[in-house]
Amino acid sequence: MSNEEQQQPNPAAQAPEGAVTEGAAPEFNPAVLLKQLEEAQAQAQEHFDKALRTQAEMENLRKRTARDVENARKFALEKFAGELLAVRDSLEMGLDAARGETDVEKIREGTELTLKMLAQVMEKFGVEAVDPQGQRFDPDRHQAMSMQPNAELEPNTVMAVLQKGYLLNDRLLRPAMVVVSKAPEGE
Amino acid sequence: MSNEEQQQPNPAAQAPEGAVTEGAAPEFNPAVLLKQLEEAQAQAQEHFDKALRTQAEMENLRKRTARDVENARKFALEKFAGELLAVRDSLEMGLDAARGETDVEKIREGTELTLKMLAQVMEKFGVEAVDPQGQRFDPDRHQAMSMQPNAELEPNTVMAVLQKGYLLNDRLLRPAMVVVSKAPEGE
Repeated sequence: MSNEEQQQPNPAAQAPEGAVTEGAAPEFNPAVLLKQLEEAQAQAQEHFDKALRTQAEMENLRKRTARDVENARKFALEKFAGELLAVRDSLEMGLDAARGETDVEKIREGTELTLKMLAQVMEKFGVEAVDPQGQRFDPDRHQAMSMQPNAELEPNTVMAVLQKGYLLNDRLLRPAMVVVSKAPEGE
Repeated sequence: MSNEEQQQPNPAAQAPEGAVTEGAAPEFNPAVLLKQLEEAQAQAQEHFDKALRTQAEMENLRKRTARDVENARKFALEKFAGELLAVRDSLEMGLDAARGETDVEKIREGTELTLKMLAQVMEKFGVEAVDPQGQRFDPDRHQAMSMQPNAELEPNTVMAVLQKGYLLNDRLLRPAMVVVSKAPEGE
């Protein structure tokens, strides 16, 4: 008997692939089964390899993420800090100039310029002032330091801004400190 | 014949799992093969599911990464910008004070304070000044604006700092602008 013959030991071997022969009880063909087994094993291996590869890829992504996050932080600061250098230079130059200067107006102009530079850098990075003088009190953006009776203003109007607030990309960075009107007593 | 018997159609069925019987040509037992096939198919399915799950996990990680990077950027700016508000307040207060003030010394003190605040905020975020007066010229951190013959100094010494440089976390943000000594001609 050859190996071939030993692998096909009964007549069911001639049945079509699949175990059921029409009108009869199921038959199993070892040659077909062996082929199916090899295919299933190859597929199991293939899927296993794919899972492993994806997992390795994910590990790499994880490492890269940590690095990306750190770089994003660094780069954001780098650009911001870089632009602030001009503000610092301006302050230092103003200070040098103030040493020999007696004209208050000139010094004031220097400070004004520095402030303008700082405001421009901050604006460029999404910082926006909240200066609600005369506006309706908004508890999401303003902090009421005190309330004062006022007959001429609508109640809950910002009468004075003690310290400006700031937004960063529309998120509150610091609320404005304000004095708010209320209706005079007896009304 | 029962189904059981049909699935075990030859004596090799009694051989141990695996196709080779000792000392003889390989035999294949359909019952064993069928069991192995079912196991291999289950394994293929299991590995396929695992590959799918890992891939889904990676997709999530990818989305999270993009968000993490954006948040890192935002958060870094938020902290930095938040601390700069005090500097801006100080500048604005200084400007207000300068309006009524005639004493240059007092204005100068205000500017000095503002500068100190800015320097502290920058330092806190890793910004460090490069002020190499008298040091050896370092092309990695200094930019030579001109060279001047000098017999008293070693060649390549920084004779003057025209504008300070800055590092951010030990990386160069801006080189210092310097004047460098060289040996007098004829030496």
